[in-house]
Amino acid sequence: MKAKINIGIIGAGRIGKLHAENLVLRIPKANLISIAEKPIQIEAARNCAKKLGIPNITDDYYKILTDKEIDAVAICSSTDTHAQIIIEAAKAGKHIFCEKPIDHDLAKVDKALKAVKKAGVKLQVGFNRRFDPDFARIKQRILAGKIGDLRKIKIISRDPAPPPIDYIKVSGGIFMDMTIHDFDMARFLADSEVDEIFVKGAVMVDPNIGQAGDIDTAEIILVFKNRVIATIDNCRQSADGYDQRVEAFGSKGKVFNKNRGIDNTILSSSKGEHASELQNFFLERYAESYIIEMQAFINAIINNTKIPVSGIDGKIPIIMALAAQKSHQEKRMVKLSEIKENMK
Amino acid sequence: MKAKINIGIIGAGRIGKLHAENLVLRIPKANLISIAEKPIQIEAARNCAKKLGIPNITDDYYKILTDKEIDAVAICSSTDTHAQIIIEAAKAGKHIFCEKPIDHDLAKVDKALKAVKKAGVKLQVGFNRRFDPDFARIKQRILAGKIGDLRKIKIISRDPAPPPIDYIKVSGGIFMDMTIHDFDMARFLADSEVDEIFVKGAVMVDPNIGQAGDIDTAEIILVFKNRVIATIDNCRQSADGYDQRVEAFGSKGKVFNKNRGIDNTILSSSKGEHASELQNFFLERYAESYIIEMQAFINAIINNTKIPVSGIDGKIPIIMALAAQKSHQEKRMVKLSEIKENMK
Amino acid sequence: MKAKINIGIIGAGRIGKLHAENLVLRIPKANLISIAEKPIQIEAARNCAKKLGIPNITDDYYKILTDKEIDAVAICSSTDTHAQIIIEAAKAGKHIFCEKPIDHDLAKVDKALKAVKKAGVKLQVGFNRRFDPDFARIKQRILAGKIGDLRKIKIISRDPAPPPIDYIKVSGGIFMDMTIHDFDMARFLADSEVDEIFVKGAVMVDPNIGQAGDIDTAEIILVFKNRVIATIDNCRQSADGYDQRVEAFGSKGKVFNKNRGIDNTILSSSKGEHASELQNFFLERYAESYIIEMQAFINAIINNTKIPVSGIDGKIPIIMALAAQKSHQEKRMVKLSEIKENMK
Amino acid sequence: MKAKINIGIIGAGRIGKLHAENLVLRIPKANLISIAEKPIQIEAARNCAKKLGIPNITDDYYKILTDKEIDAVAICSSTDTHAQIIIEAAKAGKHIFCEKPIDHDLAKVDKALKAVKKAGVKLQVGFNRRFDPDFARIKQRILAGKIGDLRKIKIISRDPAPPPIDYIKVSGGIFMDMTIHDFDMARFLADSEVDEIFVKGAVMVDPNIGQAGDIDTAEIILVFKNRVIATIDNCRQSADGYDQRVEAFGSKGKVFNKNRGIDNTILSSSKGEHASELQNFFLERYAESYIIEMQAFINAIINNTKIPVSGIDGKIPIIMALAAQKSHQEKRMVKLSEIKENMK
Repeated sequence: MKAKINIGIIGAGRIGKLHAENLVLRIPKANLISIAEKPIQIEAARNCAKKLGIPNITDDYYKILTDKEIDAVAICSSTDTHAQIIIEAAKAGKHIFCEKPIDHDLAKVDKALKAVKKAGVKLQVGFNRRFDPDFARIKQRILAGKIGDLRKIKIISRDPAPPPIDYIKVSGGIFMDMTIHDFDMARFLADSEVDEIFVKGAVMVDPNIGQAGDIDTAEIILVFKNRVIATIDNCRQSADGYDQRVEAFGSKGKVFNKNRGIDNTILSSSKGEHASELQNFFLERYAESYIIEMQAFINAIINNTKIPVSGIDGKIPIIMALAAQKSHQEKRMVKLSEIKENMK
Repeated sequence: MKAKINIGIIGAGRIGKLHAENLVLRIPKANLISIAEKPIQIEAARNCAKKLGIPNITDDYYKILTDKEIDAVAICSSTDTHAQIIIEAAKAGKHIFCEKPIDHDLAKVDKALKAVKKAGVKLQVGFNRRFDPDFARIKQRILAGKIGDLRKIKIISRDPAPPPIDYIKVSGGIFMDMTIHDFDMARFLADSEVDEIFVKGAVMVDPNIGQAGDIDTAEIILVFKNRVIATIDNCRQSADGYDQRVEAFGSKGKVFNKNRGIDNTILSSSKGEHASELQNFFLERYAESYIIEMQAFINAIINNTKIPVSGIDGKIPIIMALAAQKSHQEKRMVKLSEIKENMK
Repeated sequence: MKAKINIGIIGAGRIGKLHAENLVLRIPKANLISIAEKPIQIEAARNCAKKLGIPNITDDYYKILTDKEIDAVAICSSTDTHAQIIIEAAKAGKHIFCEKPIDHDLAKVDKALKAVKKAGVKLQVGFNRRFDPDFARIKQRILAGKIGDLRKIKIISRDPAPPPIDYIKVSGGIFMDMTIHDFDMARFLADSEVDEIFVKGAVMVDPNIGQAGDIDTAEIILVFKNRVIATIDNCRQSADGYDQRVEAFGSKGKVFNKNRGIDNTILSSSKGEHASELQNFFLERYAESYIIEMQAFINAIINNTKIPVSGIDGKIPIIMALAAQKSHQEKRMVKLSEIKENMK
Repeated sequence: MKAKINIGIIGAGRIGKLHAENLVLRIPKANLISIAEKPIQIEAARNCAKKLGIPNITDDYYKILTDKEIDAVAICSSTDTHAQIIIEAAKAGKHIFCEKPIDHDLAKVDKALKAVKKAGVKLQVGFNRRFDPDFARIKQRILAGKIGDLRKIKIISRDPAPPPIDYIKVSGGIFMDMTIHDFDMARFLADSEVDEIFVKGAVMVDPNIGQAGDIDTAEIILVFKNRVIATIDNCRQSADGYDQRVEAFGSKGKVFNKNRGIDNTILSSSKGEHASELQNFFLERYAESYIIEMQAFINAIINNTKIPVSGIDGKIPIIMALAAQKSHQEKRMVKLSEIKENMK
């Protein structure tokens, strides 16, 4: 058992910098010793390294993969590079933390997972919301039997505002881009696999999103093999802030979270009680989850224990997104097995 | 304009007594002058009349219908008598308050509504929840534009515990018996008619309910003609109490209610903050709504204004229940027009 | 043990009518058989009797005191008559419920309590707030040891708006008129007697109240003999509604209540979460407490058990009010024993 | 106007490291270029510098004071050194951020403030709670007139657990050590100076604290010159967590904060609704305030604007603490002017 894990980060964009800060300042068992970025954006890596005292920067991520001091890498580059770097890192014998999604293409995902399996390294996919203290506690209470037999999971997940239309066009669609987090959350809480999916989608926020071939609002029913029913309520726009609610309902009660305000004050007047605005940004809402997921990754390596979000956990939500697309197009309940069969 | 309305109640069961108490004590513009009950249960009427100072009791409700002093009747007898008494009361020229449902049989409902129309009397159906201060305020805020364009309505409606199996067997099924309130609520808030319905039902509470041919848990999607999407979450059992939540979500925000506890205390210890149990009984949860619906009925007569819950409002949720049954059986989205066409 | 208690009410004003309604409709073990009112206001008694089916009305309360059928009386007449009627009722062998205060004059109070003691009848004083479900539960949790050793009691008690200046002038002052409820609550929760009182008073609401020789705002510290410290925060005006909060703080945690809104809705927009206005009227806020205190009185008679709010409980807050006045005038901590000694 | 401020930190203990992290990672307009610590603890400075990429460390803080590149210093060393280093830093022409308290000795405080004044540098004292988003918003809403004329300020400030007895003995007593924050908060919100103080203190948590000559529980009344009344409720032990509540009550309503839980989940069962434990540690509770106070300091230097917490703001709470001690000892209202006169 090593006392500390040497880690390198590939990608010094918004999420790479976030992981860098967490690794240096909040995860004593990790040594962040290198950060890579493309030559054109190397300045971002330089600034980050300077602030955090990271000894090495490079514009060639192979230097990280071939550095014998390094035990693990965090892949924070653009999505289209994930699968390839996973394969290379696996071959280099590095443990891998990879931002989601692995890829939109199931065949590429499978190839990456195969390489990981062959190399015998660990792979954790960045479904950070599982580590959010609220959702983790909901899970914990389900496991502790506090709500008895689980019957329903209800997820409300609404973004403050839609991304630019140009992004929408390359996003892979709402299910692949936004709902994928909620698919993971539903699986995580249900502790089962989805049997069938029904989707009612709509364009309510911006007609341009419809013209781009996507929807911006959806209501989804998931039926799990263990008979749990989950619902997901998505919308690309939520005027009152980032709306992230989960409820698990069982035979003995329910457990749920409340949205977080930007402060905890109440103004009480003749017009009623007025509480703070909701938090409005995912990096603020999920700040703790990013720290805890990385701690979990580092600990799993040090203790050689099971990775909490595996490659399979990264793959299945992609299948769910494909099934949701099909349900939306064909206006009927779609079995997940229909997607899997197509893949063979 | 009369200053006061003379009213008679037909039926001195639980709900009849409730309306009697409200009419006498809390609605100054009403004179409750007579209460009828079947000969075998006349003692209930007698006790009620004694307590509340109601001048007349009778075991023959025709005495109320033929009493020239009486302006209006409240029909609180068993469901199978509703349609018939409506017809008789209409012929007698009385304004009518009728407990829901009018009947499970659409043909009988139509006949009753026809008689009302012909007589030109007012008919209010007892969908009391519209008058609940919380739901009324949600409606009010939608109308005031506080949430912008309405996008979704989310209704969670879970009973504390299922009724006896013998009741389940004659109840008309969960959609006709329990969801019917939620169908009314969805219509009320959406201010539109349902176009199509999708249901995912399940037996999760008690297998005996399944053996009786019914379900005890459901997830329903309603698509309205104005494109609003509503969801209804039903369960016959809710261990933490009577769970009655509504959320209206729109382009400028959302408005929702919180469940009510039996008290407003918090115990804060090293284990966390512990608040009161939820209210557990519909008569307690909806006490105010029964007063306000009856005030609305009396006021509509006095001022000769529009009745807030009309005969049509009593009929359409029955059609919705039939469509829900069909969706559950055929596992597909069902158009409301399919039910209407069958009826012709 | 009698199955039912026959009771008469003396006084058909606001509070008399309230008790009448509760006795008839919500306390099955009580028979309200008579209500008395002064000749000039007899119409109020007549209307009340008619609505509730009370068999007898009288303009001479001696008819109630001499009615052998009657077991108990509820004294709801004006304050200046309380002590005298208590004495007469006691002599007539009736159990007595008396609205607070017994009298502002301690000598009169003592005389009345002496008569009660001599007659061996039960006397309950109308400190209704002890029976409020929130405050009762706070007490219950203290007794159950949920907060460990009690350290502090914090009472915030602010009226929506000050009474008319003419009332202020004859009210006996804020401590006798308003704080007296809070003095009772502090004693009830502390389960001890006050040793000393410190008051900081001010005129912040209306200078006319100051000119009338009273104050409208106060901050009070009570030190109990068991070393518990209580604070009372009073104000005659609270723009956001009737503010009635109690917190008990102990070695293992604290228990407190939240103010009640007029509804339970939340409007959430970009401006924050907006909850309902607070309840604004004491009869609404304390509606349940009036029912429960009367049930307790009737039950104590039927079961011949201890009265929950005794004559002494009615007397001591008056002493506390006198001590508070003295502290305010002399700007120092005042021992309750100073007042008691003056009385001898 | 400089674009960036070069700053050095004196002291690499818990609070020094906290400010270092904030300056490096969250305050882009600051360059933290040096950190000093005593030779015996220099390793702490070295580790901190390494993690954060701080270019220089020193075991001689004079090197910071004489470094011409440095514009400002943050004094995070032990309390007994504050006044002396302020004087030296002022002479060296550095702007000064100094952790509270400046000193327990008023004469030393005055000497330090005099040196600052003479040098014309800026001095900010570390009363961080003013910058807490909740309390800052309370202040903001008072200033915006949302609660009308301010009448009362109510502060509840209870620590999770008492410090060790050895610390208590040298702490200067509860008023100087713990209440001093609340004195600052009361002044901040009242926007006035205290006229008189009344204290009721007690030993309720640990008799050893009493034997050490201190108290562990207090109830304080402050009367401000603008007639606002403030109360402070202190206790050295709060079993349910760190209890930090402020309420401002005015003629148009009130504004207050709620304590923060460690998560935002609710478990709802037949036993009631169970929310999370409260936060339990001041560094967690006040994390944001430390960032914001330092931003304010840096901005005040860059823009040459008024420092938000001045030397006088650092001094007056010390006078209040002395008056509180006197009130506790003499069991009477004490005028702040009594303390000031003694000082001359």
